[in-house]
Order: sequence, then structure tokens, then C-alpha cells
Amino acid sequence: MRAEILAFGTELLMGETVDTNSAHIAASLPALGVDLHTVTIMGDEMADMVDMFRKCMTRSDVIICTGGLGPTKDDLTREAIAECFGETITLDPDLIAAMEQNFRNRGQEMPETNKKQAGVIPSVTVLPNPRGTAPGWWAEKDGVIIIAMPGVPGEMVLMWAQQAAPRLKERAQGTVIMSRTFKTIGLGEAAVGEYVSGLFGRENPYLGIYARQDGIHLRIITRAASQEEALDLIAPMEAEIRAALDSAIWGIDDETPEERVGALLTERGLTLAAMESCTGGLLASTVTDVPGASRYFRGSLVTYATEVKSIAGVAPALIEEHGVVSAEVACAMAEAVRDALEADVGIGITGVAGPGPQDGIPAGTVFAGVAMNGAVESTVMRFPPDRPLVKRRAVVMALLQVYRMLLESQQ
Amino acid sequence: MRAEILAFGTELLMGETVDTNSAHIAASLPALGVDLHTVTIMGDEMADMVDMFRKCMTRSDVIICTGGLGPTKDDLTREAIAECFGETITLDPDLIAAMEQNFRNRGQEMPETNKKQAGVIPSVTVLPNPRGTAPGWWAEKDGVIIIAMPGVPGEMVLMWAQQAAPRLKERAQGTVIMSRTFKTIGLGEAAVGEYVSGLFGRENPYLGIYARQDGIHLRIITRAASQEEALDLIAPMEAEIRAALDSAIWGIDDETPEERVGALLTERGLTLAAMESCTGGLLASTVTDVPGASRYFRGSLVTYATEVKSIAGVAPALIEEHGVVSAEVACAMAEAVRDALEADVGIGITGVAGPGPQDGIPAGTVFAGVAMNGAVESTVMRFPPDRPLVKRRAVVMALLQVYRMLLESQQ
Repeated sequence: MRAEILAFGTELLMGETVDTNSAHIAASLPALGVDLHTVTIMGDEMADMVDMFRKCMTRSDVIICTGGLGPTKDDLTREAIAECFGETITLDPDLIAAMEQNFRNRGQEMPETNKKQAGVIPSVTVLPNPRGTAPGWWAEKDGVIIIAMPGVPGEMVLMWAQQAAPRLKERAQGTVIMSRTFKTIGLGEAAVGEYVSGLFGRENPYLGIYARQDGIHLRIITRAASQEEALDLIAPMEAEIRAALDSAIWGIDDETPEERVGALLTERGLTLAAMESCTGGLLASTVTDVPGASRYFRGSLVTYATEVKSIAGVAPALIEEHGVVSAEVACAMAEAVRDALEADVGIGITGVAGPGPQDGIPAGTVFAGVAMNGAVESTVMRFPPDRPLVKRRAVVMALLQVYRMLLESQQ
Repeated sequence: MRAEILAFGTELLMGETVDTNSAHIAASLPALGVDLHTVTIMGDEMADMVDMFRKCMTRSDVIICTGGLGPTKDDLTREAIAECFGETITLDPDLIAAMEQNFRNRGQEMPETNKKQAGVIPSVTVLPNPRGTAPGWWAEKDGVIIIAMPGVPGEMVLMWAQQAAPRLKERAQGTVIMSRTFKTIGLGEAAVGEYVSGLFGRENPYLGIYARQDGIHLRIITRAASQEEALDLIAPMEAEIRAALDSAIWGIDDETPEERVGALLTERGLTLAAMESCTGGLLASTVTDVPGASRYFRGSLVTYATEVKSIAGVAPALIEEHGVVSAEVACAMAEAVRDALEADVGIGITGVAGPGPQDGIPAGTVFAGVAMNGAVESTVMRFPPDRPLVKRRAVVMALLQVYRMLLESQQ
């Protein structure tokens, strides 16, 4: 099944908004067995839209569009599809009633202009929109499917997941492509490759290896006639990878270090605290992005000024002796904050975020210390001297260090 | 001048990467007097690329493309343009020498495959790439310009700003569209509108008013024959807006609250400290995203657990009396951290980030306290109960509160 995506909206052509909808849809098509060949972003001119739909209908089996379903005169997706199909739009009284009820629930009266959003044609099945006023369209004629969804990402994502994608999955007959990613820690690319060397070189499932910010990733990619078959193909290779790499695997697919550390801490009833310098609070903010972090996160002391580190319990003599950006100070920070905030695990991070060097230490140098179970370990990291990147990567590496030590402490 | 953008790359069609290049280019075209009508993302199939270039040449004056300039067999942008132009690619010895030097500078030898990137045709002027190996192409034939740049955003952004956009500006004869945005604080939309009511309703420059996360924005949009003329049209309206709104304007165009607060603190030689609960370190991380923040930022105590607030100097009795999410506790946090970290200005933030309520207080409720000059002021904010959004917006509002109090303290 050949597909293309159309994103309508002048604001996208003005560069005011980045089109994230298309990538979101694109990412889920391989698993549906749908082959995407083109994404087009264009404005809201009726004639151009009709021309585009006509051309798409000659070259694609399914056309997925976002935007142009609003209540204003500029919103012309419905009109353009109706024109291509040679059908006339009529207002659906049930849809109008449901939309009016929606407005009443929010204590408002529906403006007259919104009625336009209740327009349908005979070839359309309506896709409900639980988050907004614009219903979606599943339109089908002469063997071509056009799916029209709102441009607001929150509304589109839900309509796609709940309505459009499941319908499309039933209809798609193509080869399904599925993948599973294993994220490892503590091993280099060559070592990871050696552990699973017997699995490379196969065509289906195919195994790839990638060096990423958060460690070496192994990725199984498989092609099959259905999602079920694809999962069956993945399973034996997955079992071999898990057996070979075992605890070196810290996460699967989209899992993040903060989620995995949070899960381990919760499981063991342990608490975490941090003292951060060059990451400037990003570690704490990342940890608290996970709902339920209050169960295990005590807090963080962002000791940006050197004197504040001493206020927070790091001995000035130690800083004087080793320098504020050093393994010794990172460890002392970890121990001091663990004690001060009465936590089980303490993290200390000190480094040079950049853009320039500090006290002769190049930007991108970061020391992390982790204190737990009466021991403290430090690591040093050297990143390219890009301020936001240094902050982000130092947080990932410090959290993975905590993860590794938590695992080892159990063995 | 009618333009379109082509983004080449199978990884874009797989949804693994979001195409941010196109929006970046699109955003700068109005000020160059270039009219963008379509953005197309497509794969690396030679025949499709040639067809697309041929079609684009019939409907656009300039075709801006990204991707497909790498050293592999899948990188076919050069080949496709040469085919359309009916020209033959030859390797440029000077380019090869420069690329080899680049590799030697990094202590490496250039792989033979990279030589392909030194390919040129007679209609091409090469655009240097200071950040990577792939030179860009400015190709011109039969009145059509094709600009080909690398897909790596860091390389593309620099080549666009330094090489391609300035050349295009010289050639574009179209109407230039420029804008200037004024971001205000402390006034509602109606009040801002009243102050400048005489300026609305004009066609050029046009004045728009928008409610945003960081306050009410006024935006002047103007059309002119050149950037210079556009700026001349903006100037008198800008002067009237500045006179009418004066200190209610906290920032212009892309300026952020953290930059403006940092600038004011630096100017006055003052220091800042924070105690954060529901924002979980995001305020500190945002403040330290600004290079040079160490001049004025002392640090932040991320007191996620309630007991940690007491460790940090907030009286348990106060928390007991008013509840941990209250104006009184926010003010006490601001004063306690100002004293503990020996800063001039203290911020305290306590609230419910969500997703669920806490102690009967709905998610999205946030109190911010700011202490300076012996006084302390609090505000309460109510945001939709979306965790990342609550954190982000609470940080913006707390920083703008600091900005307002800093301004008022001078008057």
C-alpha cells in the first residue's frame, strides 16, 4: 500500500511552526505495512489543494492529510476532497448536536461558523475528535483512501492512534516492518558486537548496531506479512540477545534512563538526591519529568557558585586542593548531598558546560560521582564543548552510572 | 520569486528524524522577499528525484534542497541535478585537496569514497561547508536556481546563513516581509490593545495582538521592496509602541525571560538564588542555559520532598499551618534561599505539577514568591494539568515576576 502525507497550513510555510505531525504518522506506517513515498507541506489555496489531491489519487493508495479542518474560510480540506470526489457537502445534524453539546459542557455556546465542521459527503466515514471540535474524515472512492485529520498535534495524535491507524491496519496488505531496540551500558561497540556476533548478517530479522548518546544500541528489524508474524520473528533473536548481554541492557525501545532509574529505586524502596554544578538543575528536572518521582526523589542542590558547594557541605580545603572541577569534588558532592538530604543514593556533578574553558579545564569536561552503600565511584566524561549538549549528555551518563551501580549492588 | 524546498532522506520518511531544516529555511524567506509555496520530503530514488527537479523547474524560480550530498551510493542529489541540467559531473582537484587537508587536520586520512563529494558541473558555484565534508551547490540554468545543502542541521544552518541566504537576497526582487514582536508583562490583552488602539487597522505596517505563554505580544508586520524600506516602515510604529507601553515591554522578538533577567541582574551587580519544588530544577536549568549565568546565579535548592524544605530553612510550623502548596510557603522558600545562598534575590516555587491533585489542590496550581530589597511578593498561577507544560510555564512566570520587581525596584 503506497501512501503519501499532505500537511496543509500557511503557518508551516512561514516557518512559524515545525510540522511534527508528518514524522509522527510516518514513524508508525512501517508497522502497519504501509509504504510512505512523499510528504508535502503546502498552503491553503483551494485550486492547488484540488490539483494536489487529483495527482495524489493517481499515484497513492492512501493519502493522509493534516490541517485545514478548522471553522474559518481558510480551512478548505473538506471542500477540496469533495470537489475531487465530485460530491456535495451537507451538514450532519447529529454531528452538529454533538458539537453543540461539547460547547455547552464547557459553558459556551457554539459559534455559527463551527457548523461548517459538521460537513460530510456520501463517501465519508467520520472520525470522532475527543479533544477538539473538528471531526476527521475517512473518505474513500475509486480504490483510494483519503484520511483527513486536524493539524493540532494533540488532537491529531489521538485521532490517528485510536481511529485512523487501526482502520488502516485492517486494510493494508503490505509487508509489515517492525523493530526492537536494546540499549546497553558499560560495553563498547566492539564488545557488544562480539557478544552477539552470531546474529549479524541475517536478512530477516536483520540486526544492526549503533553508537548513541546513551550507549550502544542493538536493533532488530524484521519484515513480515503481519505484526503477529513480525513479533514471532523478533522473539527468538530477542531471547538470544537477552541471554548474551543480560544486565548490560538497561532499556528497550523508547525507555529513558530516568524512567529505568526511577523504576529500580521504587522497586527497592530507595531514595535519590543530587548536587549539581554544570548541569544547573537539568538532572533534577529530568528526574522529576517522570510522574511519581516524589516517591524516590528527595531533591537536588544546584550549587552553581563555588562557595555554595561549601555551604552545601563540601570542604573548602578539598576544593582548594583538587580544583572545583575534579573527581574528588564530584564524590564529595555526592556524599554531602546524600547525607544532607537524608537519601540512600547521592549524585554529584561538576564540570565545564562551556562555551569557554574554566581554570584551564576545557569545556565539555564533566565529573560525576555516585555514592551509595557506603561506597562512592566517579567517572569523567569529555563531550564536544556545546553548552546544551554538555548538560544533556552529562545527565544521561550520570543517571546510567546510578543504574549500573544499583544493578551491581544487588549482585 | 517563487520558491520550493525539497528535503531528501529515507530516514525522514521513516519518521526517525523530524525535518527541522525546512522550517528553519522557511522562516527566513519572507525577509528575503522569497515566496515559498511547497515543501516536499522524499526518498533517495534517482528517477523520482530527477522527475521532481524537472517539475520544480517548471513552477519555481528557486529550489532549495537539503540532504543527499553525503559520500555514499544513496546520496544522489548531485547526480539528479546534473541529469536535469544535461551536464556531466567532474571532480574538482582543488576541492579534493581542501577536503584531504580537512581530514589531515583531524589526524585522519580521507576515505576514497569521499572524493565523490568534490563533484561539480559547469553550472555550479560551490558553497563551502566549514563544519563538514560535503560542499553545497549553487546551480543555475535557464533562469532557475537550485541550492543544494547538506542534511545535517548544524552544517545546513551555517551554510544557509553565511552562503546561500545572502546570495539569494541579492537576487530576489520580490516583496520583503519583516516583523518585530514586543512582549509585554503585567497587562491583559484588552489593556495592551487600549494603549496602542490608534495603531490598529492599518494595512502596512500591520499591527497584530496575540496572547502567549509569556504575556501579550504586539507584532508589527510590514511589506516593502527591500529590508531597508521595511525597517523604515517599522520604525515610527515601534517608537509609538515603546512610548505607549514603556516598561511593560520586557522583550523583543526572540528574547527570553532568562536572558532579560540575566541582563538586568548583571547590569545591577545583583545575584539570584531559587528554591524549587514542582518545577523540579527546571528554573535553575533554564537560568543556566544562558552563557555567563555564573556571574549572577548562585544556585537553586530543589526541595522536592516536603522535609527537604525544612532542611533548607522553611519552618515546619509554617508548612503545617498553610500547607506545602501555598503563597506563604512560596514566600518563605524565597526568603530562606536568598539568606542560605547569600543572594540578593530569592525565588520560591511550590505547586502541583500533576498529573493528579495533591492534598486536594488541583494539578496545575503553582505559587511563586520573590524576595528582594527586604520585601517579598507572591503570585498564584493556574495552568492546565499537563506536567511538562506546568513546569515550563511556571518557570516563565516566575522569571517574569523577578523581571517586573527588578524594574519596579529601580523606579
